[in-house]
Formats: sequence, structure tokens, C-alpha cells
Amino acid sequence: MDHSTFKPDYLYQQVITVVKEMVEQELLLPGDKLPSLRAMASRLRVSIPTVQQAYQQLEMTGLVVAREKSGYFLQSGHDTATPRRSKLPAKPVMVNKQQLIEQVYEGIHLPDVAPLGLANPVAAASPQQALAKSMRQAMRQAQERMLDYGAIDGLTMLKAQIVQYYLALGLTVNSDDLIITNGAQEAIAIALQCVTQPGDIVAIESPCYFGIVELVENLGLKAIEIPVCPDDGLWLDDLSAALSRHSIKACLFSTSINNPLGSQMPESRMQQLLKLLCAHDVVLIEDDVYGDLYFGEQRIRPAQCFATPGEVLTCSSFSKTVAPGYRVGWMLAGPYSARAKRFKRALSCSAPMMNQWALADFMASGEFQRHLRQLRKRLYDNKQKMRLAVQKYFPEHVRVSDPKGGCVLWLDLGGAYDGGLFFQLALRAGISVAPGAIFSAYERYRSCVRISYGLPWSAEMEGYVRTLGALVQQAKKQPQPQSV
Amino acid sequence: MDHSTFKPDYLYQQVITVVKEMVEQELLLPGDKLPSLRAMASRLRVSIPTVQQAYQQLEMTGLVVAREKSGYFLQSGHDTATPRRSKLPAKPVMVNKQQLIEQVYEGIHLPDVAPLGLANPVAAASPQQALAKSMRQAMRQAQERMLDYGAIDGLTMLKAQIVQYYLALGLTVNSDDLIITNGAQEAIAIALQCVTQPGDIVAIESPCYFGIVELVENLGLKAIEIPVCPDDGLWLDDLSAALSRHSIKACLFSTSINNPLGSQMPESRMQQLLKLLCAHDVVLIEDDVYGDLYFGEQRIRPAQCFATPGEVLTCSSFSKTVAPGYRVGWMLAGPYSARAKRFKRALSCSAPMMNQWALADFMASGEFQRHLRQLRKRLYDNKQKMRLAVQKYFPEHVRVSDPKGGCVLWLDLGGAYDGGLFFQLALRAGISVAPGAIFSAYERYRSCVRISYGLPWSAEMEGYVRTLGALVQQAKKQPQPQSV
Repeated sequence: MDHSTFKPDYLYQQVITVVKEMVEQELLLPGDKLPSLRAMASRLRVSIPTVQQAYQQLEMTGLVVAREKSGYFLQSGHDTATPRRSKLPAKPVMVNKQQLIEQVYEGIHLPDVAPLGLANPVAAASPQQALAKSMRQAMRQAQERMLDYGAIDGLTMLKAQIVQYYLALGLTVNSDDLIITNGAQEAIAIALQCVTQPGDIVAIESPCYFGIVELVENLGLKAIEIPVCPDDGLWLDDLSAALSRHSIKACLFSTSINNPLGSQMPESRMQQLLKLLCAHDVVLIEDDVYGDLYFGEQRIRPAQCFATPGEVLTCSSFSKTVAPGYRVGWMLAGPYSARAKRFKRALSCSAPMMNQWALADFMASGEFQRHLRQLRKRLYDNKQKMRLAVQKYFPEHVRVSDPKGGCVLWLDLGGAYDGGLFFQLALRAGISVAPGAIFSAYERYRSCVRISYGLPWSAEMEGYVRTLGALVQQAKKQPQPQSV
Repeated sequence: MDHSTFKPDYLYQQVITVVKEMVEQELLLPGDKLPSLRAMASRLRVSIPTVQQAYQQLEMTGLVVAREKSGYFLQSGHDTATPRRSKLPAKPVMVNKQQLIEQVYEGIHLPDVAPLGLANPVAAASPQQALAKSMRQAMRQAQERMLDYGAIDGLTMLKAQIVQYYLALGLTVNSDDLIITNGAQEAIAIALQCVTQPGDIVAIESPCYFGIVELVENLGLKAIEIPVCPDDGLWLDDLSAALSRHSIKACLFSTSINNPLGSQMPESRMQQLLKLLCAHDVVLIEDDVYGDLYFGEQRIRPAQCFATPGEVLTCSSFSKTVAPGYRVGWMLAGPYSARAKRFKRALSCSAPMMNQWALADFMASGEFQRHLRQLRKRLYDNKQKMRLAVQKYFPEHVRVSDPKGGCVLWLDLGGAYDGGLFFQLALRAGISVAPGAIFSAYERYRSCVRISYGLPWSAEMEGYVRTLGALVQQAKKQPQPQSV
């Protein structure tokens, strides 16, 4: 310490500035180990005590923590154990995540691998019996029509049921504005094509479902990610800042329940969101696929319920509630309907007929709502059990989300750990997980993973969590030569 | 005539040149009435006898015909009564046909309208019973898996059957290169996106199935149309000329059986086609949906059978042979497979599971091939009956195609008639037809219509043809002020 007193103040200040810049540029993430005293000193051509003085100073401000015999780490924890929200990035980027996403898909669909990487909530409480009954009805009553091309915008019977469904949420939908699609994925693809051109900037969530990251890449759009708070959803201040700074063409948010965080945007904030978008004249595409899978007292309604025509395109599907294999979703396209139908027609003609008929019957019979109640209950139980298991089997420093709905947990293994490596290790152990890096168009969430509690809970499931917990230490990043 | 001898030669030559230019620019189409002597004289500021001399000269060359009390008409007939091939257009164009196509779709799906505008061959001999059996099998044996997401590239069982199907055609397909899609339309959309960027030039057929015209428009591609001969398919000389003149990125042809002409490209010409494309290093996307619906001794195999890897992407489906409402098609993507799978995933995840399972069972049971034999026989009978009816009930000057497969007749009402007006008149009479104009990215085929013989033949069907035949005279073009 004596030594350092000979150094002028600005030298240790300089070290502090460098560390803060590394944080700003996300070269250091929460939980990451700071460069060693020796490495930092040599890099900045200052003495080791100067670096130490800077690190101690940073420790006093709470930005870093010292760990005995390990060194200094960027602060990763607050008093809550859920992951924290990320920062608003400086600029929109072209997306380049397909190859990584592909590897994950390959892992998910390997035989004999427990599919914890896949978000399939239906597995928790399959409506198999009731749905099979509806399908047999479809075959008996409408076999002939099933072999025909259907209308581009979908089977009238099913559309009528979906109109009813929204009516129960207080929303009057014009049947002409409702288009049945091949799952919500196609609905979102069409919605994006309705309101954007290649090269346009689209605001997405951070973290964001990787199917959307990939779609944005495929359509040649630029993405800017708006941080999502694990509790209340989208960070409106950041969105406001982004809307002021960039010429954003459309927003694509899962307003009701976010995947992977499981956060939920209160309806009051949803109204604020709409006001903000209206002021900037930006369209909202909302992905409401998890909207019905809430754990609270009641459903957060889709933003469409609070919007005036043309402000919001709503995309949803039966894939997260009834049967992903049916490939039936829909969109409320409002004034974009004519355009959306043209895209639908040119992309894939109509949706599968018999599946539409069976789903219409499933809804009309009351089985849909009965099944949803059952599914929500089961998913909530699964969530509680899996969170407990994670807390039991994972190292203490691992942060885990407490989702307000949906079927996935989001884990932050800490900055010293590599989610991609963890994904590989888990796959070798016969378990698929989804690595954090695919949930962002940027280089983010590399220390995170998403695991699903959509499968029925069992001793086997608990075993998977135990196995995963034991793998965390092996997923520690290899020390690499760092450059500032 | 005396009068004209005072005129120097170049005046009547000038009239001839103007007429030939009008033909070149397609302002005059085969069968069109030439401007009256008086109108032409006034427009070109020459005397009426000068124009008459020119028209008589043109009559001698065979380009125009004089009809008593009617005037002069552009020659529309040869000794055959089938429509003639069109010309190679001068340059590629951005497509703008969606609104027109939309009106047609709306007509097709109106209730109580006989859907002669829709090409649905399956209606001719529905495999309903056997397919229902396969679907029940699917529900019994695989109900649980049906509720799951399937693999992006499709159900392994079905892929194995399609591999077998190609093996019987002498083609060995690597299962990894086969991707199940939501019908051929999605397969073609993906194939185009694999090999082109917006703004690229794509060669399509002329006339061309309107679903492709629309898709090319949606993807922001430019189209150049290559004339199709009613007998032998694509006109290779024209293709060769177009390939030399334009930087064509991909060709999209229905090589085996064209829609709407029903022409068929002999395998020897298909090999020439491939040689030509290879020399110019241009990829062929082939639409083989009608390939199995041939009327000759044996199937014309898809171009894929004669190609080396990467030259051809083959798109096909069960929509024209088994069940359009199932929405199951496929593509052979060869070296483009990885890219194609990414597009498939981002566009619509996987194809409907149960439908895939049922089709796999339908193929494995031998019912598919049995059904195809039956369907071909029925379609051939329908074609013969509908052609006879057209010859019986339509005015003599109407040309009708003699398709070598598929389910549609292509009628040329003659240049004095408006196919769009005929479409409107037919719709008012309770019959949908497809107007010729939607089968081209250019202003072509305005005097044509397509009608389907895919519905079971009956006295009612004959009645529809009689009604349509009686409407032709009403579809005569209104005389309009013409400008040169």
C-alpha cells in the first residue's frame, strides 16, 4: 500500500474507468472474474498495487466482490435470486444465430434424450382422450370436406370458436380479421412481412424466444433488444429510449407471458406500452401463445384488448395449450387482413382441415377451457417442484427465475460459467437444455440456460435436475487470454 | 384502289409496320380485331384505301384474316384447335397480380358456386375410405406422439415411404435431403428463398400456375416467362435465348405436367433442359405435383432423376393426389437441405404430425399406388367427357387444350373476348372458372380461361359446360378507343 501512494491518483482511476468500460461493453458480465491483478497491471502498464487499489475501490462501490483465493468478480447478486434484467444495447444488429440454434434443435430431437430443452407445456397434462374424441367426430361428420382445400383464412367453424374465446376476454373480433395459420410461428412470420421490409429495425425482447431470433434473421431484419424485467415484463423506459434513438418499424413482444423469463406484464403497463407505441406510430406484433398458461388469479389479456384497430397484430396458437403436432395457430390482423391473407396463400395455402375441425369441436364441447384449468394447475405444481429441485441440486450461486406462467425456468449459472458448454455436457448426459446464447441477437446470456418443466413431474425428472446440477462445475469457463 | 396508286409505297408500308409493332408489343393478340379502316386512317393521317391496301397485304401474308361485315382480325388459328404457344417476352418484370388473384380466390370459395376454377383432382376419385382407415391407425398407434412437436424435416416413417417412392422411379434419395413441408406451396417458397434474393430474376413458365405468379410477387423477385408448348412443354430455344440475355438466378418449372396447359416434357428434352441449365450454372426448382397424374403409358420422371446433386430442387405434395386438406408436401433439397431446414423451422416449425402418420400408413399399405391408378383412369375419362362437352357447347372458334395429364382444360376464347369478363359472368351464373390473366406476370392470356375436370363427371357437370358455352358471346370485349 505504501508503494501505491507514490502513484498519482489518475492511474488507479484509469483502471476503474477501464473496468467500467468493460462492463459497459459487456466484455465483463455479472459474475465474471475480473482480469487478475498481474494481467491487468501488465496490460495497462501500471503496477499491481495500483490495480489492487482500483479493485478495492470498486469493491467499496459494490460493483465487484472479492473472493478469497479466487480474485475479484463482477457483482452478480442482489438480495433476490432471480436473474436480473439486461441493459438496453447501443444499436440494432443483423442477426446471425441460426447455426447455433440448429445445433440446439438437433440435440432436442435426438432419441433417448430427455427433452428439457423443448418448451412443450402440453405434455404436463395431455388432452389426448378428449381431443381424440373430437378428431373421431371430425372424421365421421366431415371426412369428405377434409380432403378438400379449405378457405385460405381457415375453417369457419373454428374461426367462430376463436371469436367466442376473445369475446370472453372482452374483445370483439371481426371474423374477417382472423386468419388461421400453421402455428403461431407462421402467424408471426406473416405479421412481420405485413409491416416490415428487409433491412428494417424490429424491437424484440431480451431475452427473446429463439424462434423469433431466427425468424428475424431469416427475414433480413435488424433487431434491437429491449430488456425484460423478470417480474413485470418489458422495460418501458428502455423501449422509450430505443424508440427515440432508432427508426423502429415494429415491435414484436410476448406481452402476456414472456419466454424464457416467464414474466408477465400487468395490464396497466400494457396500456402504457400502447400509448408509447401510438406516440411513435409503431405497430405491435404480440405473441400470446403462453397467455392462457398463467399462475395468478386471472389471465393477463392480450394488448389487442386495449388497442384501437391497426395498432396491434395478435398471434397465437393451440401449440402450447392443446397439441403442437396439430400445427394450428391464428392471427388477428385487423386492417392488415387482406395483406396477411395474400402472404398466407402464397406461403402455404390453407391450414390442415381435419385438425381445424377437431379443434373447433374441442372448443365447442367445453373441453378446451376444462383442459386449460387442469393444465395450469399441473404446470404450477411442476414449476414449484422443479424450482425446489434446482435449489436443492444446483450450486448456491445459480439464479433461477420464478415464472408467472408458461413452462420454463431460466437459470443464470453465473458469469464464470458457459451455458453452451453446459448444453454440451447435458446432452452427453442424455438431457437437452436450451443454452442462453440463442435467446438473443447479441452476444448475451452466455452464462444462462433454459429448462422446461412441461414434462410430467416424476422421480426421473428430479434425477435429471440432480444430474444437471452436478454438471455446473464442469461448465466453468476455461481461462482465456483477455484483451481490453 | 385507284386512289391508292397515287400514294407513295412507304405510306401503306408504314401501316404494316404499325400493325406488326402492335403485335410485337402484344397490343394486338391472336384473334383480336384490328382497328377499323377509318380509325386507323385517321390515327396515322393516311387515307382509308391506304389502310385497306396494307390490311389486304397483311391478309396475303397470313397475319390477318378478313371477315365479312366484321373487319380484319389478327390470325388466331392454325390447323390444330389447341391453344398456341406464346412468345418470349422482351424483359423480366416485377409481378403485380395479387389483387386479381384474390378476386378469383374469393369466387372459388363462395358457397353454392361450382368450383371449376379450383384445380382439385382428388375429387374425381376420393381415397376417403382407405385414408380414414390410415387416420384411425394413426390415432390408435401414435396418438401420444401426435400431440408432440415433430422433427423439423418431418416424420421418419413418412420420409422412408417417400424415399421408397423415388426408388421405384430409379432415384436414390438421401433421407436427410428430404424435408416434409406444408404442401408443395411451402416447399416452393422455401426453395426460392434458398437460391434467390429479392430483386433476382426467376424464369417461370408461360402460362404459369397463379400460385407461383403470386409467390414470385411476394418474394420481391422479377419474373421472365418462358413459353410452354401445349404438347412438349417448355420451349428450350426461348429458354436458351433468355438465359443468354438475362442474369437468371433460378428456373421454376413444372417439368412433368404443366398447369394450366397439361403439357408434358419428354424425358429426352428434360435432359436437354438440364444440360442447358448446367451450362449457364442455373438451378432448377421443379414443381412435380401433377407428375403422377399422367394419361400416357408411363410417368415422365422428375428432372431430379437425371440431375447431379445441387442442380435440381424437387417440390411435390399429396395435395393433388390424396388430400389437399392434409397440407403435407415435401422437397428434395440436396445440398440446400441445411438451409432449407432453417427456413422451414423459422416459417412454420414442423408439418402436422397425425396427417404425416396417416399418409405414411396409406403409402405403406399399398393403397397409395392403387388409388393413383384409379385416379388417373377417372381423370382421363373426365377429360374426354369435358372436352367433348366444350366442343359441343362452346362456339367453334374457341380453342381447347388436350392435356396429357392433370385436371384442367385451358380455353382460348379468342382475342375478341375477355376472360376476366367471362369469369365474372360465370360467377354470376354460379360457376367459378380461373381467368387467363392470372396465369402470367405479364398482360397475357386475357382471352383465356382455365376450367377443371377434377369433379366427378355428371349431367350437372355437363350442364355447367353448357352454361359456360352460352356465356362466351356475352364476354365479347367492348369496343374501346384504341391508341397505337
